[in-house]
Amino acid sequence: MQGAVEEALERFLGELVRVKASGRTDAGVHATGQVIAFDAFAVRTERAMRDGLNAHLPRTVACVDARVVPAEFDARGDVVRKRYRYTWLDRPSRSPMREDRGWHLRRRLDDRAMAEAARLLEGQHDFSAFRAEGCTAKHPTRTVEVARVIRVEDEVQLEMVGNGFLRHMIRIVAGTLTEVGVGRRPPAWVGEVLEGRDRARAARTAPASGLCLERVWYRGDPDA
Amino acid sequence: MQGAVEEALERFLGELVRVKASGRTDAGVHATGQVIAFDAFAVRTERAMRDGLNAHLPRTVACVDARVVPAEFDARGDVVRKRYRYTWLDRPSRSPMREDRGWHLRRRLDDRAMAEAARLLEGQHDFSAFRAEGCTAKHPTRTVEVARVIRVEDEVQLEMVGNGFLRHMIRIVAGTLTEVGVGRRPPAWVGEVLEGRDRARAARTAPASGLCLERVWYRGDPDA
Repeated sequence: MQGAVEEALERFLGELVRVKASGRTDAGVHATGQVIAFDAFAVRTERAMRDGLNAHLPRTVACVDARVVPAEFDARGDVVRKRYRYTWLDRPSRSPMREDRGWHLRRRLDDRAMAEAARLLEGQHDFSAFRAEGCTAKHPTRTVEVARVIRVEDEVQLEMVGNGFLRHMIRIVAGTLTEVGVGRRPPAWVGEVLEGRDRARAARTAPASGLCLERVWYRGDPDA
Repeated sequence: MQGAVEEALERFLGELVRVKASGRTDAGVHATGQVIAFDAFAVRTERAMRDGLNAHLPRTVACVDARVVPAEFDARGDVVRKRYRYTWLDRPSRSPMREDRGWHLRRRLDDRAMAEAARLLEGQHDFSAFRAEGCTAKHPTRTVEVARVIRVEDEVQLEMVGNGFLRHMIRIVAGTLTEVGVGRRPPAWVGEVLEGRDRARAARTAPASGLCLERVWYRGDPDA
């Protein structure tokens, strides 16, 4: 993704530009609200920047909005909060129009049990149980403001809002909630996994295609 | 589409099967509620038929449900009503996750004016103005039960329910409503186009990718 944006900027502005994102997303993860920042010599209006970038980006990437920011803006360091959504499709048949936009399970998930389990993750906790190997975060404590599961017809969605997330954290949470959703574990088990701080006790990482970064909040945002 | 289903059936059931759909859909048009029927020698439960078909269909087509029906069921002749949805994305930037699922226009559409115009199409009318060349229907009169335009965030959607539609009818209606949406024509103009019964007065056919066949009702359906 970063490479695609840098190539588009180079073709559009005629200069080499290095972009910095709010954070990395794994291959296959979607983002409707990723934020990137860069310095460039070229001067463009915000609108011309957005439209010019879109004219040069591949069809799988789009610039939704462009803003001029103070030079000291740090796309990664100034993040105060992020919202992610993990989507399951729980229906007997595939859904071609939503392919690669959710984790398809043919059995119906118990979304109420999953919602009950998800709530146990809200608050400030040591999330070592939901941290992938190779995570470079300095410490495993994060504050989850919202961990909510809802059903929208044949989709079950996990919404997570927090000040930061460990590597694969939401996908490991999604995999673990799936165990509850299919009835193999009771909701309280997720609390035990959290308290155990042992990655081996949580379930497998859920597929990347179900995950989407929806929004990043920055210091000074009106609703930050 | 028909060919893909017939090939899957042949591989799955080991016999040549000819399918009949509720009607034709143009290339590029989506369908979440298409109905097809066929006779076969093979005996399968409804569930085994659905799952077996899905195992053999390409990823762009899925069987949502399978039912055993009386031999006299006519997938095309017994239709009493169909619902289609035409979707515009009206936002300055492309939306990669919804690519090919709507007609993307960069300017914002006046959905209220479009809704007002759409309502003029409800009822029994001669829809010659919204009939493509080459349409083989015996007469141009159809009853439109619902022609409703709603906004859902950055999508404008036209929902049309009727006892049948002429060739390209909904796409020509969508193209014509677009003229109203961008402010080039007032809502009442759509009524004049309808009354004129002249295809040349309506606007160009809207792109196929915005259209989706959502539901087909049959004689005897509980809510038919």
